Amino acid sequence: MAFNFVTIGEVLLRLTTPRSERLTQARQFDAIYGGTECNVAVALEQFGVDPALISRIPDNDIGQACVNYIRQYGVDTSLVVRSGDRLGLYYLEIGASVRPSAVVYDRARSAMSEIEPGMVDWPSALAGRDWFHFSGITCAISEKSTATVAAGCRAAKAAGMTVSIDFNSRSALWSPEEGAKRLDPLMQYVDVAIGSARDPILGIMLGMEGNIEPDDRTADAYRPFAEKAVSKYGFDKMALTVRDIHSSDHNSWQGVYFDGSEIALSRRHELEIVDRVGGGDGFAAGAIWGVMNGWNPQQVADFATACGAIAHTIHGDFNVASEAEVLAAASGSSDVRR
Amino acid sequence: MAFNFVTIGEVLLRLTTPRSERLTQARQFDAIYGGTECNVAVALEQFGVDPALISRIPDNDIGQACVNYIRQYGVDTSLVVRSGDRLGLYYLEIGASVRPSAVVYDRARSAMSEIEPGMVDWPSALAGRDWFHFSGITCAISEKSTATVAAGCRAAKAAGMTVSIDFNSRSALWSPEEGAKRLDPLMQYVDVAIGSARDPILGIMLGMEGNIEPDDRTADAYRPFAEKAVSKYGFDKMALTVRDIHSSDHNSWQGVYFDGSEIALSRRHELEIVDRVGGGDGFAAGAIWGVMNGWNPQQVADFATACGAIAHTIHGDFNVASEAEVLAAASGSSDVRR
Amino acid sequence: MAFNFVTIGEVLLRLTTPRSERLTQARQFDAIYGGTECNVAVALEQFGVDPALISRIPDNDIGQACVNYIRQYGVDTSLVVRSGDRLGLYYLEIGASVRPSAVVYDRARSAMSEIEPGMVDWPSALAGRDWFHFSGITCAISEKSTATVAAGCRAAKAAGMTVSIDFNSRSALWSPEEGAKRLDPLMQYVDVAIGSARDPILGIMLGMEGNIEPDDRTADAYRPFAEKAVSKYGFDKMALTVRDIHSSDHNSWQGVYFDGSEIALSRRHELEIVDRVGGGDGFAAGAIWGVMNGWNPQQVADFATACGAIAHTIHGDFNVASEAEVLAAASGSSDVRR
Amino acid sequence: MAFNFVTIGEVLLRLTTPRSERLTQARQFDAIYGGTECNVAVALEQFGVDPALISRIPDNDIGQACVNYIRQYGVDTSLVVRSGDRLGLYYLEIGASVRPSAVVYDRARSAMSEIEPGMVDWPSALAGRDWFHFSGITCAISEKSTATVAAGCRAAKAAGMTVSIDFNSRSALWSPEEGAKRLDPLMQYVDVAIGSARDPILGIMLGMEGNIEPDDRTADAYRPFAEKAVSKYGFDKMALTVRDIHSSDHNSWQGVYFDGSEIALSRRHELEIVDRVGGGDGFAAGAIWGVMNGWNPQQVADFATACGAIAHTIHGDFNVASEAEVLAAASGSSDVRR
Amino acid sequence: MAFNFVTIGEVLLRLTTPRSERLTQARQFDAIYGGTECNVAVALEQFGVDPALISRIPDNDIGQACVNYIRQYGVDTSLVVRSGDRLGLYYLEIGASVRPSAVVYDRARSAMSEIEPGMVDWPSALAGRDWFHFSGITCAISEKSTATVAAGCRAAKAAGMTVSIDFNSRSALWSPEEGAKRLDPLMQYVDVAIGSARDPILGIMLGMEGNIEPDDRTADAYRPFAEKAVSKYGFDKMALTVRDIHSSDHNSWQGVYFDGSEIALSRRHELEIVDRVGGGDGFAAGAIWGVMNGWNPQQVADFATACGAIAHTIHGDFNVASEAEVLAAASGSSDVRR
Amino acid sequence: MAFNFVTIGEVLLRLTTPRSERLTQARQFDAIYGGTECNVAVALEQFGVDPALISRIPDNDIGQACVNYIRQYGVDTSLVVRSGDRLGLYYLEIGASVRPSAVVYDRARSAMSEIEPGMVDWPSALAGRDWFHFSGITCAISEKSTATVAAGCRAAKAAGMTVSIDFNSRSALWSPEEGAKRLDPLMQYVDVAIGSARDPILGIMLGMEGNIEPDDRTADAYRPFAEKAVSKYGFDKMALTVRDIHSSDHNSWQGVYFDGSEIALSRRHELEIVDRVGGGDGFAAGAIWGVMNGWNPQQVADFATACGAIAHTIHGDFNVASEAEVLAAASGSSDVRR
Repeated sequence: MAFNFVTIGEVLLRLTTPRSERLTQARQFDAIYGGTECNVAVALEQFGVDPALISRIPDNDIGQACVNYIRQYGVDTSLVVRSGDRLGLYYLEIGASVRPSAVVYDRARSAMSEIEPGMVDWPSALAGRDWFHFSGITCAISEKSTATVAAGCRAAKAAGMTVSIDFNSRSALWSPEEGAKRLDPLMQYVDVAIGSARDPILGIMLGMEGNIEPDDRTADAYRPFAEKAVSKYGFDKMALTVRDIHSSDHNSWQGVYFDGSEIALSRRHELEIVDRVGGGDGFAAGAIWGVMNGWNPQQVADFATACGAIAHTIHGDFNVASEAEVLAAASGSSDVRR
Repeated sequence: MAFNFVTIGEVLLRLTTPRSERLTQARQFDAIYGGTECNVAVALEQFGVDPALISRIPDNDIGQACVNYIRQYGVDTSLVVRSGDRLGLYYLEIGASVRPSAVVYDRARSAMSEIEPGMVDWPSALAGRDWFHFSGITCAISEKSTATVAAGCRAAKAAGMTVSIDFNSRSALWSPEEGAKRLDPLMQYVDVAIGSARDPILGIMLGMEGNIEPDDRTADAYRPFAEKAVSKYGFDKMALTVRDIHSSDHNSWQGVYFDGSEIALSRRHELEIVDRVGGGDGFAAGAIWGVMNGWNPQQVADFATACGAIAHTIHGDFNVASEAEVLAAASGSSDVRR
Repeated sequence: MAFNFVTIGEVLLRLTTPRSERLTQARQFDAIYGGTECNVAVALEQFGVDPALISRIPDNDIGQACVNYIRQYGVDTSLVVRSGDRLGLYYLEIGASVRPSAVVYDRARSAMSEIEPGMVDWPSALAGRDWFHFSGITCAISEKSTATVAAGCRAAKAAGMTVSIDFNSRSALWSPEEGAKRLDPLMQYVDVAIGSARDPILGIMLGMEGNIEPDDRTADAYRPFAEKAVSKYGFDKMALTVRDIHSSDHNSWQGVYFDGSEIALSRRHELEIVDRVGGGDGFAAGAIWGVMNGWNPQQVADFATACGAIAHTIHGDFNVASEAEVLAAASGSSDVRR
Repeated sequence: MAFNFVTIGEVLLRLTTPRSERLTQARQFDAIYGGTECNVAVALEQFGVDPALISRIPDNDIGQACVNYIRQYGVDTSLVVRSGDRLGLYYLEIGASVRPSAVVYDRARSAMSEIEPGMVDWPSALAGRDWFHFSGITCAISEKSTATVAAGCRAAKAAGMTVSIDFNSRSALWSPEEGAKRLDPLMQYVDVAIGSARDPILGIMLGMEGNIEPDDRTADAYRPFAEKAVSKYGFDKMALTVRDIHSSDHNSWQGVYFDGSEIALSRRHELEIVDRVGGGDGFAAGAIWGVMNGWNPQQVADFATACGAIAHTIHGDFNVASEAEVLAAASGSSDVRR
Repeated sequence: MAFNFVTIGEVLLRLTTPRSERLTQARQFDAIYGGTECNVAVALEQFGVDPALISRIPDNDIGQACVNYIRQYGVDTSLVVRSGDRLGLYYLEIGASVRPSAVVYDRARSAMSEIEPGMVDWPSALAGRDWFHFSGITCAISEKSTATVAAGCRAAKAAGMTVSIDFNSRSALWSPEEGAKRLDPLMQYVDVAIGSARDPILGIMLGMEGNIEPDDRTADAYRPFAEKAVSKYGFDKMALTVRDIHSSDHNSWQGVYFDGSEIALSRRHELEIVDRVGGGDGFAAGAIWGVMNGWNPQQVADFATACGAIAHTIHGDFNVASEAEVLAAASGSSDVRR
Repeated sequence: MAFNFVTIGEVLLRLTTPRSERLTQARQFDAIYGGTECNVAVALEQFGVDPALISRIPDNDIGQACVNYIRQYGVDTSLVVRSGDRLGLYYLEIGASVRPSAVVYDRARSAMSEIEPGMVDWPSALAGRDWFHFSGITCAISEKSTATVAAGCRAAKAAGMTVSIDFNSRSALWSPEEGAKRLDPLMQYVDVAIGSARDPILGIMLGMEGNIEPDDRTADAYRPFAEKAVSKYGFDKMALTVRDIHSSDHNSWQGVYFDGSEIALSRRHELEIVDRVGGGDGFAAGAIWGVMNGWNPQQVADFATACGAIAHTIHGDFNVASEAEVLAAASGSSDVRR
């Protein structure tokens, strides 16, 4: 395989009520395992990347179920630290129409939130790897996990790897101000920055809003924001998602990519949503794949956006779609293949 | 709790084919229990109301399943008369696109249709209660149940309670003419009248049509109809639903509220429907909650309509949504809460 | 019964992932049996036609499951040849939004693909029958099945029956060129031709394109194509489907019918799709029913199109809808029936 | 086909809780259709008999679902009268261990209970048929259905057909005394009598008990009872089931067959029960098949008992097992066939 | 109602894999809520007792789902403290044959484990109540919950209530030695003691083994153990379960009851197990019901044991069985009721 | 990891009807992937072995689903040849009581049956591996696959690896005579031979029966058969399963192990069967693990038999049980672990 990838992040048990039922009505949960960084790893594996995950997962049957779930999609789990008390989890109710999706978190004191930098043998974990990815969520869950991410970033840069972040704000986990404060010191390691144009943490960090009103959206409209980020933090490249929420079932979805000089805006997808969780991770994976391949900004923006679009149509967090399928979605073809 | 509520009505076993399958294809049914008045009681309990149900339910395992189902949502079932031969039921096929939802009723000779006024100890049933609610369906199912509703209305008025009706026409149960004839004598007890602007029974009773063409819909356009109802029957308040059916999956949905002097029209919701049954009951509950709280007409119209909108997004008849969720829907927010 | 119908074609086991899951994720399959010609037979039975199927199905438990599945909808299976090694099958993943539906075929060397003309006792199979129907797919699967279809066509014409074809191209089974070559010799038997206005095989056979751009669609716009078909091959009547694919969930859908002199275009349905497979077969059945009843072109076009529209709203291949339901859909009514 | 068979009886919707759940817990029901006589017809079809059903089933979607369900197993439903208000139904909870299975009936005033003799065109219904079967249940549900059975018996005897009864007592439907009184006049038509050795109705009719204690069970121990039945009512043959209930999951199961002179007792099966409903019908079908084939008493007893044994291992009422499978079960082989 | 009952204990979310699947294989969990004391309350409600639960459950959607689940069975949840961070949970894999059931606990730091005595208004919580029940598990989960139980015991004795304990050892939660140490100070309040004859904590507390080898089991064989308990701790009555585990599916099950002078041993049930969790709670409820009714020792032993036996046949923790059903099971009847 | 393992064999899609339903009734299939050699690999991975699979699997979505399924359990799939037309499959109906499990194979012309020796790069496939395993089934499916197995055996012996076979007869795939003929030339490579004591192929190859009547079963009773095998073919070790089939749900199960000098017979397990497929593979894996660890004959026999016993209690082919769980089952403990 031409490309490889290593990421650090938490994997959670996600307990989703079937058929959009309310949490208070549920008698059954669909059980999957996922987490933003792991989702990116799985999506990249579909394109031919060889991905590995660094995480901490308890050494019990639920932890094993989690590891089994991940490795079915070809992610190398040999770097996972198998210890800790519990796997974090959350309950998810998928919304419909005027009813938004809702999450009840039960992730405090998870094994991953209590990871420590010394639990990972960084030189051997990163040996022979080219790309290191993390997200804001891993920094949000605890100071220990932030310290571990920082250790990873330092080791990655020392090894000459490309480092990417997906900001991935979660207002239930921390305030934008706390987020900005904890993420700021990590920015020095980042080469490729990915996030939402409306990310409140990014807004605070850059001192400006990335959001552009629908009627004003052009590639150039996003240039000041992207240039500010690049100039302030020294990022090489930046990718941004642009989402308008019409209802739980229908969103408009677009993406921006800035390669440091050129900026491109993808075409707009009107999404009919099956499962929103993991949509942004699909975008991140698409953007990383574009960067890995050295595509031009329009290609990256279109591919990343289409990749995120498909991710919205698949149950679960993982975007199990091939490069050919993403390219077809980018080109707008949806006829049955038979 | 600040508010309480007692209602009389039938609870049916609803047998729904999974995944919109046709009745003729079904090998499985989802089983829930519901009925328009009970649905209103459950929705009100979510807002903090203490609700009780008067009904007649057989003293067998299916009757017990029904009672269990209701009381899980906090409805007081101690007033339910436990006797009779059978629980009424209906088969429901949820439609899709150009295929409408379809119902096969099997509710004749149900326990509730054979209830008699003397089976309820009215003074003790209503003691300490402030609000009495019934619907046209309970009058449609038999003369005995109509007589029992009438006895309840008299007792409620004697006890100084507020009385509300949801007209709730069902063309499969009676003709509009029969409906008008049987409901007319009960109007003297009604304080709060709720119904569809297109209700054919109401049309006959008032001698005018409540329906307004989409382009002409303003609050004032509904004033003549509401004023006629109030002046003819002495209602204090009136709430009306306004629905346009684009397909089984998509309806437009709006509401009107008239407090006797001011009239308001809610904003229009474009509904993506999960389960239409109970939508109107959500509206009724929202309107009653608004009246209980003394909100202004625009607030009542918006809350009732949003409450009905959410009810369309939840499997089953019951609208299990909090006041905060209804207010959020009224304000148009549908982003995932996490 | 006033009408009868006999058709020849393959019936496949269709293994569909539940809830639009990807094939690579599936742990369960919904199992139904269907095939384009059989689907037409079932749809016609709902209207009161007495249908029979000629096919070859193995004499094992899966073959019996297939026969049982078909005969529950009233199709006479006594003409089915019970021998051969295996029932053909395919795996289906129903798409969503930007993700198209996908099929993995495993139908090579099926019992039906190895049928031979002599396995059917044609005189007795067709005795007393009035209408013989086949589709392009049966010709695509093998030369043996094509020869058997040809034998059927000859016997049907000899018996004075009406013969219909649904072209039903499948690019995964043969190239348009191969299709045109193999179907051409059968055209002499055909009275009623049904297909897609975009059918590539038909395009080659007629040397012209049937597709008309959305803005230019009038009944007369399709006249040259239909007249060419009728004049070249001597068809009596022709029916064409017109589909625009906006996404996996949403298509526009219309139909054309030419009775040899008059041509009509149906109204346009905006479909919210439950299950696309069998949609065209619903159209074919509707068109055949219209021809059987001698309706005028507008009636045939509207009925066939509405019939196909309903077929898109029903899980599985079979369009189990009554004539009254199709007429209601043609007239645009979708309110819940209760 | 060498044999044919016509039977009259009610078909009910059976709503079973999944996984042995209690009725009071159920949120889902498995829906099948069955009835003792129809169950016999289906079981016989598996052996190659051409069966037909006389019944009354409402002309609505649930009635159609019922007809579809039956005809998938090859039963001719063209004699079914399609009218009446409702399909009878029952709720079934399958027991486990010390908890017995439980039934809640909701079958009063079903279409079949209101059938009348004149609704069936007896001469044409029975034309060309050789065997007429009914059960005590059809007589238990109403006087009208009893009268219709009587009309059928008379017509069958007039046509020279063999008539069989399965006594099939149901204590929830009538008392043994009522049963004896209503069945007695029909005995004159019966050639083949089938029942439980412990049937209380039969006990009253014959004035003696058929039950034999386990340690005393020999073929000859049942001779006095069988001879009394044959001498009193003029039956040609008699078949009796012998069951000991150890728990809901485990029964011992045996059968007796008396051909008027020789009597045989089958080997004893220790049953691990999947679904008890329809077990006796499997025995009846097995006995009838044995009589049709002129097997010797031991063969009939063994086949009928094994057929009933298999019926206990299949979900639903219908015993879909081939003659070869029954013979294998009779011989005691249970290894996986692969 | 003649009897009432209040209990304190934790309610957990129980996530069970369907169909005995291994935890490491699961893609779905059945979700119920239960806990030993709550299970006793539900079982008693079936007999006509009016039960209430004291617990601490978080004020989020999962907490509400839990409350809804409990109150469907008629348990008064108004005393539940609605605060805390999380609902404790456990994953359950139901065993089969040689494979034992397995539990993964994730209950640390649950809302209930952090309850404090002052969170409950004891005088008003216990006002008008006659019986107070707790179990060893509530003491095992934390010192705070033990202190709260102790406060409850003191208040109950002050109010003249009967106090019962079910020892209910869990080796995963504490060692027998710790258990003995923490439970010892509470014994002074206990009137009715319930436990396993093999309970290791009880063994330590009494300094003797309660277990009797199968061949030596008579009522009198258990007398020394019961008398020691009564004399050492001043219990009024004692009930003991006796279980032999042949496999995950098959246990032998018996019960002992000592009323302070007479001792009785129930008949032995050979259980075919559906769901073992809650079996002992069924026994406890049966014993308490027997004591409430003043039955003689043999009656109490038989009823408690049969009640526990039925509890093993029902999915979930709750024993939803009527007194009549328990009496039938005690008498050994398992025929289908129809 | 201390041990590694490479095996060659076919992986099939297994389509099982839920809840023991008959194939002719199924509307749904549970889909898993498995095959005897792959099953052994998965079971060994649970013990800590590093396993790899050589197979041929088509390069389509179903092939990918298969690969994903396998690698979730830690099997290295990088040696799998991804080409060919179709994945073989079979339909499985799990029996109950007197009804045996039944299989309908649809595996002809699968990708694996058309594998050729040259498709595998043997030196690199086997580099660094110590154990090579195959089974009789792979030889049964085609001459090409037999040739590939032979190539593997030669390469394995050349590399100094241990070679094992599980005879695994399938009467539906070949006759014992054909089996004996095709397997005989491979025996020269085999070190460890595993099979059923009743294997008809082995019986022919050795010219004697391995089966011993239940009353005569001692370790020494199997010695002549094992010694004959060892002396004729030069095996180092031999392990044999001993099964008595009481019903589909209940088998007795025992195992024999001969290390070339000592012979041992395990204790007898009375199995309550959840899923029989893969039971023998569990035994094979247990025997191989015992040999890898150099345990004594009694330990190997007990472990292998308990391992096979657990495999009968798990849905699907794979025996996902830890060494500790197998040891507990070998010692007879089945209490719930909590």
